[in-house]
Amino acid sequence: MFHLFDQHRNALERAVKAVHERVFYAHFPEHPAAYGETGLADGKAAFEGQLNQTFSLLQTDTSGSVGEEVSPYTGQPLGVQYPAATVEVLIKNAQNAFDTWRHSSVQERAGLLIESLERLRPRFHEIAQATQHTTGQSYMMSFQASGPHAADRALETIAVAYDELTHYPENVRWEKPMGKIAVVLDKTYKPIPKGIGLVIGCSTFPTWNTVPGLYADLMTGNVAIVKPHPKAVLPIAIFIAELQNVLRDNGFDPNIVQLAADESSNLLTKTLAEHPAVRLIDYTGGSKFGDYIESLPNKTSFTEKAGINSVIIDSARDIREVMRNLAFSVSLYSGQMCTAPQNFFIPAHGIALPDGEVCSYDDAVALLRNEISSLVLNPKMGAGTLGAIQNPDTLTRAENAAQLGAKVLLSPIAVKNAEYDNARVCAPTVLETTAADSAVYEQELFGPVLVVVKTNDTQHSIALAKAMAAKHGAITCAAYTTNAETAARITDEMNAVFAPVSLNLIGFIWVNQHAAFSDFHVTGGNPAGNASFTDSAYVCKRFVWVGNRRTL
Amino acid sequence: MFHLFDQHRNALERAVKAVHERVFYAHFPEHPAAYGETGLADGKAAFEGQLNQTFSLLQTDTSGSVGEEVSPYTGQPLGVQYPAATVEVLIKNAQNAFDTWRHSSVQERAGLLIESLERLRPRFHEIAQATQHTTGQSYMMSFQASGPHAADRALETIAVAYDELTHYPENVRWEKPMGKIAVVLDKTYKPIPKGIGLVIGCSTFPTWNTVPGLYADLMTGNVAIVKPHPKAVLPIAIFIAELQNVLRDNGFDPNIVQLAADESSNLLTKTLAEHPAVRLIDYTGGSKFGDYIESLPNKTSFTEKAGINSVIIDSARDIREVMRNLAFSVSLYSGQMCTAPQNFFIPAHGIALPDGEVCSYDDAVALLRNEISSLVLNPKMGAGTLGAIQNPDTLTRAENAAQLGAKVLLSPIAVKNAEYDNARVCAPTVLETTAADSAVYEQELFGPVLVVVKTNDTQHSIALAKAMAAKHGAITCAAYTTNAETAARITDEMNAVFAPVSLNLIGFIWVNQHAAFSDFHVTGGNPAGNASFTDSAYVCKRFVWVGNRRTL
Repeated sequence: MFHLFDQHRNALERAVKAVHERVFYAHFPEHPAAYGETGLADGKAAFEGQLNQTFSLLQTDTSGSVGEEVSPYTGQPLGVQYPAATVEVLIKNAQNAFDTWRHSSVQERAGLLIESLERLRPRFHEIAQATQHTTGQSYMMSFQASGPHAADRALETIAVAYDELTHYPENVRWEKPMGKIAVVLDKTYKPIPKGIGLVIGCSTFPTWNTVPGLYADLMTGNVAIVKPHPKAVLPIAIFIAELQNVLRDNGFDPNIVQLAADESSNLLTKTLAEHPAVRLIDYTGGSKFGDYIESLPNKTSFTEKAGINSVIIDSARDIREVMRNLAFSVSLYSGQMCTAPQNFFIPAHGIALPDGEVCSYDDAVALLRNEISSLVLNPKMGAGTLGAIQNPDTLTRAENAAQLGAKVLLSPIAVKNAEYDNARVCAPTVLETTAADSAVYEQELFGPVLVVVKTNDTQHSIALAKAMAAKHGAITCAAYTTNAETAARITDEMNAVFAPVSLNLIGFIWVNQHAAFSDFHVTGGNPAGNASFTDSAYVCKRFVWVGNRRTL
Repeated sequence: MFHLFDQHRNALERAVKAVHERVFYAHFPEHPAAYGETGLADGKAAFEGQLNQTFSLLQTDTSGSVGEEVSPYTGQPLGVQYPAATVEVLIKNAQNAFDTWRHSSVQERAGLLIESLERLRPRFHEIAQATQHTTGQSYMMSFQASGPHAADRALETIAVAYDELTHYPENVRWEKPMGKIAVVLDKTYKPIPKGIGLVIGCSTFPTWNTVPGLYADLMTGNVAIVKPHPKAVLPIAIFIAELQNVLRDNGFDPNIVQLAADESSNLLTKTLAEHPAVRLIDYTGGSKFGDYIESLPNKTSFTEKAGINSVIIDSARDIREVMRNLAFSVSLYSGQMCTAPQNFFIPAHGIALPDGEVCSYDDAVALLRNEISSLVLNPKMGAGTLGAIQNPDTLTRAENAAQLGAKVLLSPIAVKNAEYDNARVCAPTVLETTAADSAVYEQELFGPVLVVVKTNDTQHSIALAKAMAAKHGAITCAAYTTNAETAARITDEMNAVFAPVSLNLIGFIWVNQHAAFSDFHVTGGNPAGNASFTDSAYVCKRFVWVGNRRTL
């Protein structure tokens, strides 16, 4: 098996270096054009070949099948059926597989796992199709998020884990001088895996949010059961299939990673999570269920839940550029990204501009509204930026945003998807409220809804943004100021509640984006989640160092 | 403050290297003779000067005093009174102190904390006296465990934390090529502390078990409230006093570390632990209270609880050497070490010796009994090895061990402490039972009680030891075998339940000892505790990485 390690050693070492240096790095190019002239057509054909078929997996003892995916673009069921298994079978398979996998070496696992990513590389277009027609993301986002970005996040996790798993020498001779004699011992240090990991996926980012936990489990010698959202199975099923192929091809038990497909009417999640043999749980999704996951005794959990992300606008060099950048951030995938901004804190006295100019509060709000309108109505940009709404409930909530009790500054503009007549499209609603009316904005408004909150001044904005992050969690905070002291204060205050600050982003970079090898995703310090892609704790909590000693 | 960092930089770098290489290393020599010809006398005088006085601390707003320590050697109260404070005062002081401490640099903190250890160095003899007359440890153990070994453990924690806190660059320029343009951002990476740490001490190792958590909290930028066991305050109070001195001398708030002394009749522990401002809890003590600590929501806890440590004897080169080594391990500090062996699993068919010889089960048990008797009756060794029993309840339980329902192979031999007529001395009781009678040995018998369990064979011994560790936790496992395959099997099986194995220890090395910079103490993987001195997770869970980004 070491041939795979040797084969991928350079990639691993570059990834380890990237994780340490945190400068720009991508192992998998993010542009679809990098994946062959016929890549798009081949991927589409492969995807269409899966429709109305039973998906093929190597895991054993499945019985029957399930499948209920519906394209948010066509409104039609995909018809893909996934092999089903009972919780008992999944656990038994996992326990058997663990007995061999736990004895594999760090190098073997690194080789096998990177090999799986390389085998997925030619399938990124197929994964993109699967992602688009389950999540509602645009094709471009589907491609990047579920393909190269997800694979880079997986590689990042492999690199962080490799670094931690090789942190101590495997063997040392320990010689303690005691006057005329010396005590001599041979000591070994072993990272022992915990057992079975459950990885619970979400419906909006079925691979990007799942593969870090999945690869972290596998890389640290644990076996994994992946429980995807029943409405977004296919993208991660393709990852699992390739992992199982690589394992089988190299003499390992394919049950080391299993798909636990289920149905909305009969979810396996709680039964799996509460099973005593499940020791690790990765979870992406709503806060209520995430809190339940975190409360389970005798489990190590890694959660990404909901947050309320803030924008603090104090001053700007070019307020139109600022609003254009933010308009894109809130419109991108219709606000269904966990990193999308929701609450815009703008001082009543307006926003300071260069040379003593001021953009009044009303003008600032008008600019924001106009930039959103321009974007979504742009025939080349609008529909592609918005994508489609994954869940009909999200659409209903967004359409009813006017009833939240706030002033409606912008109602959803009708946007037509030229390619898909039945696409579930919804442009942003912009609400406005006072700071006092916190009931409106002190909740996660998942989807294309944002709230402008008029504050007394920037200090007030900071206080409110900080309180939201501390109480409800926050994954990002976008801030705009030309004043160095204010920038430092915003950063200090938001960092104190473990919210990262993105300062003065304009142009082709948005607060929503968290790049592998450089940006931590979720800090793990506030209620938005207890884990971070990918810090040391993200992998170290999955195994236990055990030191043995022996006389010579 | 950087002068302290510069001053101690070499010590820090040597410690970081030692942590990585894990060969023998000690920054503080363990032999009392290394601390000056008059060290012993000076320490004794300093200790006696504290008796019946109020201990002096720099922390503010204390009111009244508490103190109830009694020497297990003399039976007399020490009469030391400690400044008391309400939980409200302790929290308010800590919150104020956190506002400055959280802004200190990693280098400042490393310098200050190593400086505190250097200032404690000349007080090791005084700390030894304080330890002896609160814990009942012998003078030698008191000196080594509470002085140099504890200081080395603290330094180890500083080193591990320094390593982790400097894991990422403080600033990078991130430049993403995008065809003709590039997106350029400046990124910063900050380890943000969580807030207030509570460190709960135990009565038997008041500094050794407390300083890793205390120094880990402080080094990661958190402030600490130390809640010692009311019967063993003085040793850790001296550490806290020196820390407060160093902080004050360098312009920091002494409340960054506070002593929360209390009384058995009015313990502050739960009120402190449940206070919402307390984010981190370190705990050493019984399992029931430790389980409660681990169950508290929204806290990060680090626990060392009780375990049931096993001895597996399969075969030996010299069975007498084996039993001599084990006799010392069970007698040392009368079995009050968390690392002391309790259950001895010996096959009914005896122990294989070289050249086809066999030591019968009965002979093995007789040897063990004889070696214990010889040790405790040795006038130069007995009383010093046993020390005194810290807690009268432990003595009562040990004296009543005969009523546990097992056969008594050895009743406590009367041992007289020549120096202290009233010393609370108790030699080991050796019980014998069958494997079936698990009620006897499936419980922690804290203190000088051990159980010999007759098993069918070594595989049976392993299965029982493994089950005990998985169900009740284990901190150590001593194993003896001359067969390489058996050694590998014992190691694999015990490691799978996260119990480290010490193989074939004889001579001047015992299973009880866990050396700083080389041995992990507690693995954190089984019910004996959820943390380990000192792996990466031990420090990483105390802070959160936050990455900020900004345009140029």
